[in-house]
Amino acid sequence: MTTATLLMHCKDQQGLVAKVTRFIAENGGNVIDLEQHVDRAEGMFFMRVNWELNGFALSPDEIGPAFESQIAEPSGMSWQLHQHSARPRVAIFVSKLAHCFHDLLARWQSDEWDIDIPLIISNHEDMRPVAEQFGLPYFCFPITAENKIEQEAKELELLAEHDVDLIVLARYMQVISPQMIEAYPERIINIHHSFLPAFAGAKPYHAAHARGVKVIGATSHYVTAELDAGPIIEQDVTPISHRDSIETLVRKGRDLEKLVLARGVLAHLQRKTLVYRNRTIVFS
Amino acid sequence: MTTATLLMHCKDQQGLVAKVTRFIAENGGNVIDLEQHVDRAEGMFFMRVNWELNGFALSPDEIGPAFESQIAEPSGMSWQLHQHSARPRVAIFVSKLAHCFHDLLARWQSDEWDIDIPLIISNHEDMRPVAEQFGLPYFCFPITAENKIEQEAKELELLAEHDVDLIVLARYMQVISPQMIEAYPERIINIHHSFLPAFAGAKPYHAAHARGVKVIGATSHYVTAELDAGPIIEQDVTPISHRDSIETLVRKGRDLEKLVLARGVLAHLQRKTLVYRNRTIVFS
Amino acid sequence: MTTATLLMHCKDQQGLVAKVTRFIAENGGNVIDLEQHVDRAEGMFFMRVNWELNGFALSPDEIGPAFESQIAEPSGMSWQLHQHSARPRVAIFVSKLAHCFHDLLARWQSDEWDIDIPLIISNHEDMRPVAEQFGLPYFCFPITAENKIEQEAKELELLAEHDVDLIVLARYMQVISPQMIEAYPERIINIHHSFLPAFAGAKPYHAAHARGVKVIGATSHYVTAELDAGPIIEQDVTPISHRDSIETLVRKGRDLEKLVLARGVLAHLQRKTLVYRNRTIVFS
Amino acid sequence: MTTATLLMHCKDQQGLVAKVTRFIAENGGNVIDLEQHVDRAEGMFFMRVNWELNGFALSPDEIGPAFESQIAEPSGMSWQLHQHSARPRVAIFVSKLAHCFHDLLARWQSDEWDIDIPLIISNHEDMRPVAEQFGLPYFCFPITAENKIEQEAKELELLAEHDVDLIVLARYMQVISPQMIEAYPERIINIHHSFLPAFAGAKPYHAAHARGVKVIGATSHYVTAELDAGPIIEQDVTPISHRDSIETLVRKGRDLEKLVLARGVLAHLQRKTLVYRNRTIVFS
Repeated sequence: MTTATLLMHCKDQQGLVAKVTRFIAENGGNVIDLEQHVDRAEGMFFMRVNWELNGFALSPDEIGPAFESQIAEPSGMSWQLHQHSARPRVAIFVSKLAHCFHDLLARWQSDEWDIDIPLIISNHEDMRPVAEQFGLPYFCFPITAENKIEQEAKELELLAEHDVDLIVLARYMQVISPQMIEAYPERIINIHHSFLPAFAGAKPYHAAHARGVKVIGATSHYVTAELDAGPIIEQDVTPISHRDSIETLVRKGRDLEKLVLARGVLAHLQRKTLVYRNRTIVFS
Repeated sequence: MTTATLLMHCKDQQGLVAKVTRFIAENGGNVIDLEQHVDRAEGMFFMRVNWELNGFALSPDEIGPAFESQIAEPSGMSWQLHQHSARPRVAIFVSKLAHCFHDLLARWQSDEWDIDIPLIISNHEDMRPVAEQFGLPYFCFPITAENKIEQEAKELELLAEHDVDLIVLARYMQVISPQMIEAYPERIINIHHSFLPAFAGAKPYHAAHARGVKVIGATSHYVTAELDAGPIIEQDVTPISHRDSIETLVRKGRDLEKLVLARGVLAHLQRKTLVYRNRTIVFS
Repeated sequence: MTTATLLMHCKDQQGLVAKVTRFIAENGGNVIDLEQHVDRAEGMFFMRVNWELNGFALSPDEIGPAFESQIAEPSGMSWQLHQHSARPRVAIFVSKLAHCFHDLLARWQSDEWDIDIPLIISNHEDMRPVAEQFGLPYFCFPITAENKIEQEAKELELLAEHDVDLIVLARYMQVISPQMIEAYPERIINIHHSFLPAFAGAKPYHAAHARGVKVIGATSHYVTAELDAGPIIEQDVTPISHRDSIETLVRKGRDLEKLVLARGVLAHLQRKTLVYRNRTIVFS
Repeated sequence: MTTATLLMHCKDQQGLVAKVTRFIAENGGNVIDLEQHVDRAEGMFFMRVNWELNGFALSPDEIGPAFESQIAEPSGMSWQLHQHSARPRVAIFVSKLAHCFHDLLARWQSDEWDIDIPLIISNHEDMRPVAEQFGLPYFCFPITAENKIEQEAKELELLAEHDVDLIVLARYMQVISPQMIEAYPERIINIHHSFLPAFAGAKPYHAAHARGVKVIGATSHYVTAELDAGPIIEQDVTPISHRDSIETLVRKGRDLEKLVLARGVLAHLQRKTLVYRNRTIVFS
């Protein structure tokens, strides 16, 4: 089944759902999934609608322009159109820790996710054997304060060459610089090993242990210029106790990080995320 | 803000969302909340839509007939219309255990819920002081195998007299007979102290302890003729360990029961539940 | 069954469990529950042991001195001895919000907790009817920047008069001043409506909403001089989504606050908590 | 650090902790971790104690006999002694589903778990490439009603040859016959994809969907002769809604199965499990 997904938002106004659904119905589309959300406090309207393209009166290329002129432009609406034919192309960035990396590769290899992984990028050699075991190209760019801009420029070239749609930072221990963030806005997902905004920055498990918290968490979020402050996609926590040392926090945290990163990436791949004012709407 | 809510379901067909939202928009209504769900396996369409009545072209009495003739009848649709003006009238049934009863009364007294509680019904005298402390009329009908039909008939009379919309069984330890269920279809909510379908029937904490489970649960559901088999509204669980005796299971379970019952009742009060084939759609 | 509980901690050293358990066994005591914890990083030993006093060779007054001279003094050990005969006397402080207050009173009234509540203290009149409905004395001390020290002095007098063991702040919206904290060290429990250390201070639900988190939390902790920075006893979270407004966060948070406060208070009442360096060991 | 672990249980009697800890202290052992549990209802005593062997007066071979004659025999105690020198040897059984298999292999390969995996056994060829990618020997024994006993006999031979300590059924879709269970009592761990005892047997996600539950679960347990009725080690659940189809239940369930199986296996590897009357004590 070929489908299309529209994500849209604008100032709330009367009749928006009716207009959009009539546009689809009059062109012979059957709605599979529709979810709208009105943020009363902001006075904003958000919607995601997904419909069957089979028998749709407009060709893939005509949908966008028609929607823009008939609906979006008159309503002052921002929108994205996604057609589910091409498999998303995902680059994974990794440093030295294997758990999230392994978890993502297993989902890809077992066809749990319908994606291509054209390349792996790292700042260390450690994970090369894992990438090779899964038959994936591995590019290593050691990064220092001096060569960072230059190395990232090479990475950007590679990403463009491989036509990458999404970058997943699978415990990649380097701050991403603004040039890369601008090249992939809302298309870089990071996993942070704390329930943000608590324990942003380095060594969150150490900080959690020192504070004596009774839960630890993980957060997947879009990367923005401010460190660990981007729009949150997914968060979850796990209970801990005084018996936990930093080592067992790290162990329990690994399982949480895998889950929270995978859920965040999946929500993005399903085109269920929409960012507005540094908050993420995650349609269900 | 006065609003109306329509809950509807029918065979899935093209253009349903468009038809319903156009009906609202053309009469000058502004949609506050809309959620649709298509069950692909069953080929069924479900929707909840809530809109502002202020400035709506149809009077409260005209909405139903107009919707029926313009939308529902041609689509073979079942629907319910709720207008949020009258406060729901909720009767609480209780036996000897105070925790769920106290929890519901506190929500009512502190205006967390916008309901009236016209009466309390019990098969024991134990909770009379609690009801009186909250200033609520308490009717006690001791029940035996012999007098059950007769006593329930008196209860039904009282319920009718007090114009009750919803019955909440707050750990009421009597099986409700078919006559009462038929009088209040999908309007009697029970809390069962296990994660159904595990441990249906009596003494679920004893059964859970004997089986050595590592979580205990609670389930709020609509009451149907088959015991503990009605449509589930809410479920949740709490972790336990070998250290838990039956006494501590009962204690931990109490907090879970309070929460799961309250969430189930709230979903009903917000008109977010729709039962189809013994399963409950709970709109979010 | 009359029992005694010893809570102890000291530098880790060989044979500590053997020494303590031999002390109990040789005096004819039967251990009901023993839990030890060694913090490797700190090199510290912690233990809680609870045993039957029936048939114990030492009288209640002799246990402490004997333990001190035979075990604690030679090992450099700090300890507390609790005998479970007297019911703990708990004062509740409340402001205008009813939910935690109601929840605690219901646990007390239904004998879920084996405590006395000699008095309620508030800075507002709002909750007086609730206290009266439960038959509890209510003292109101409106607090301004000018009269704070003076009013708290009167509260301290009342607390001393009523021989209070524990103070529970059930959403009491006033900072407790150092004089009261010093009078009740590790005996004042507060509920904060966020997963600390995130969103300390005022209006945590507003802050959580603004940051776009996907879970909200609650934290019960001992009150110390630094606001919201005392040793954490219990924490839990509940998932939220973009659909939640501040109002629904507040509503969902209320249920969480009730649970987390009740669990924290219960752990204290069961003498299962031991504070060391601003972290709480909560024995299971 | 070389350590030893004793797991023990017997009828509860006075002075047991003192006797065991004195045995360790008098031989110069330092207790790292001790946890006792008394089941009041059964009148049974359970304990796990872990201590440093460095400087211990008894050689590894002498500990067992000394403990038996000095402590266990006089107390009527059952016990197991584990010395943490040899790495546990774990065989994984798998059928066609990759997720649990991948998850276990990743933990092994990244040294999260200190185990050897001498062989993989399957009844299908599907997972051979995954095993080979990780460099592990893969033995395939297709099983029919006719050849089951015979094929299992070959498997038992292989397991003995490879000196296997623990068998993990990573979604292995074959009932294990009594001969194998007897050969590995409390040493075969299975993952069942429901919160047992609900939905035992085949197709639990279909059954969960049909019943309309609001949580799905997973259970890791020791395998016994009765299907899905063995002692439970770990259970967890994840919330679902009416929006979930069987396909999405299966997807969400996969992540839960991975976690719950891994936690169960880890508890066993850490010698933290003790089975008594079909229930599992899991020391913390």
